[in-house]
Amino acid sequence: MPTLAERLGFAATDRVAIVHVDDLGMCHAANEGGFEALVRGPATCGSVMVPCPWFVEAAERARQHPELDLGVHLVLNSEFPRYRWGPVAGRSAVPSLLDEAGYLPRTSLETLRRAKPEEVEIELRAQVERALEAGIDVTHLDSHMGTCFFPPFLDVYARLAHDFELPVFVVRPDRATLERAGIPGALEVFRRLVETLAAGGIPVLDGFDANSLGFREGDGETHNLARLAGLAPGVSYLICHAARDGEELRAITPESAHQRGFEHRFYGGDAGRRALEQAGVKTVGMRAVRELLRAERRPPGGDR
Amino acid sequence: MPTLAERLGFAATDRVAIVHVDDLGMCHAANEGGFEALVRGPATCGSVMVPCPWFVEAAERARQHPELDLGVHLVLNSEFPRYRWGPVAGRSAVPSLLDEAGYLPRTSLETLRRAKPEEVEIELRAQVERALEAGIDVTHLDSHMGTCFFPPFLDVYARLAHDFELPVFVVRPDRATLERAGIPGALEVFRRLVETLAAGGIPVLDGFDANSLGFREGDGETHNLARLAGLAPGVSYLICHAARDGEELRAITPESAHQRGFEHRFYGGDAGRRALEQAGVKTVGMRAVRELLRAERRPPGGDR
Repeated sequence: MPTLAERLGFAATDRVAIVHVDDLGMCHAANEGGFEALVRGPATCGSVMVPCPWFVEAAERARQHPELDLGVHLVLNSEFPRYRWGPVAGRSAVPSLLDEAGYLPRTSLETLRRAKPEEVEIELRAQVERALEAGIDVTHLDSHMGTCFFPPFLDVYARLAHDFELPVFVVRPDRATLERAGIPGALEVFRRLVETLAAGGIPVLDGFDANSLGFREGDGETHNLARLAGLAPGVSYLICHAARDGEELRAITPESAHQRGFEHRFYGGDAGRRALEQAGVKTVGMRAVRELLRAERRPPGGDR
Repeated sequence: MPTLAERLGFAATDRVAIVHVDDLGMCHAANEGGFEALVRGPATCGSVMVPCPWFVEAAERARQHPELDLGVHLVLNSEFPRYRWGPVAGRSAVPSLLDEAGYLPRTSLETLRRAKPEEVEIELRAQVERALEAGIDVTHLDSHMGTCFFPPFLDVYARLAHDFELPVFVVRPDRATLERAGIPGALEVFRRLVETLAAGGIPVLDGFDANSLGFREGDGETHNLARLAGLAPGVSYLICHAARDGEELRAITPESAHQRGFEHRFYGGDAGRRALEQAGVKTVGMRAVRELLRAERRPPGGDR
């Protein structure tokens, strides 16, 4: 069977990055920086946080730019201490998804401790449906803070992929990666997820680099050149959080404002484009993966 | 019977302003500018929008400054086009309070058209209760965009005042004011509200000036000096919307950013303090009105 890279038209030995902007809609700065990266920079796709206050602006920009490749960043957390959001399905519909203050919990572990999988499914379906209703041509799904990757929620994640016929951010698991991600013991569950997805014709990615925010001020270029150099052959999800640095972003997340601002400048302009070229990394978006999925799921010549 | 001004320790002929900051919690800029007006400026009290994304920050500042005089700005609208919020009670609990996009409606009239009074009551009680749970010593209630003043919602407003033993922003109505406010035909309903409140020991204010945002850039001082000059004897609610002007505020409300920014500088510092003095206007907060209400409702020496 040809590799995912080959099925997308690349060579099996190519290193192919899905340059992905997380957190669109999270705040105005995320929309300003994130959409600039998508429109002008080498970022190929991004995903939108439906429960967040600035989602409506993100959807408006998506409608203005239907060529953009946008998915739904499935949200089970509201992580910042002073800027909060609640579930889309409504607090009384999904009470197990709320923390003491009435918002989605701040950490993945708190969501894991509280959330009933059936309410997770209600909420995440509502997020996808609201994105579609808002006119976003949803190309893929992924998981904010990786909370969907906890074993109790993996089935929901897989069901959404099947039901909406969408590729998801998921890779073949290995023990070390899962341990680093804070979900040890999930190897077998994860393997089953990948098998279920593959059996249903949902493509599984070859790798990822989620180390988007782990650098000190001034080290952005070095850090990101190393990320590009570290990509293995195959199709990898390269996560970034491009957002315009400024007073709003600093108020929400002083811890990660400079990193998000750097990624805005780097993946929103020529610096990132040149770095990808010089590293010999090719790029692709999730819409191409979705079209592959839908083409492969249907017999040639069959009806849509 | 002595006037409200006299019961608060002023002379009946004094012009007394409740210098009130609306929209705390609406955004970070509203918290920055609004709390500065309360802590450093002549603003005497303000009210917090519980359903808004930055409510948690407002509550945190309220806990840090328990001396501040803060009420709940009862919210039935989410008026800005790209920055939205939903009800506190949860979308499935109060479906008549949602617009097509799933948020509180953008205009008062749309709320009037959609909202069932019993769901308005569920939502507004949830807002007051969440403010209390967040540690805010709620001193009063008022109504964001005046939506509670539509006749179908007036009984809810009065019941909340009674049940929580809180003064509300309300004045004796006259036909011209109600017509200017876009609620003609409400005179009799409004009169009954005021009678109900007064009979229950809830003080009614003598006047108000809500013309906080109606001036062009550069005209802020002239406009606000005229507002102060126009106050009649008695206790008047002087509404302002102090917020820090900047990128966040401009993104949310380009139409009213310079006015909110001016009011932050004016009512957040010596200019407003001097202007009040020179106009001979005295000031008081709603906590004093609440203490008056609670004292008058109880027989001398009776149990709390």
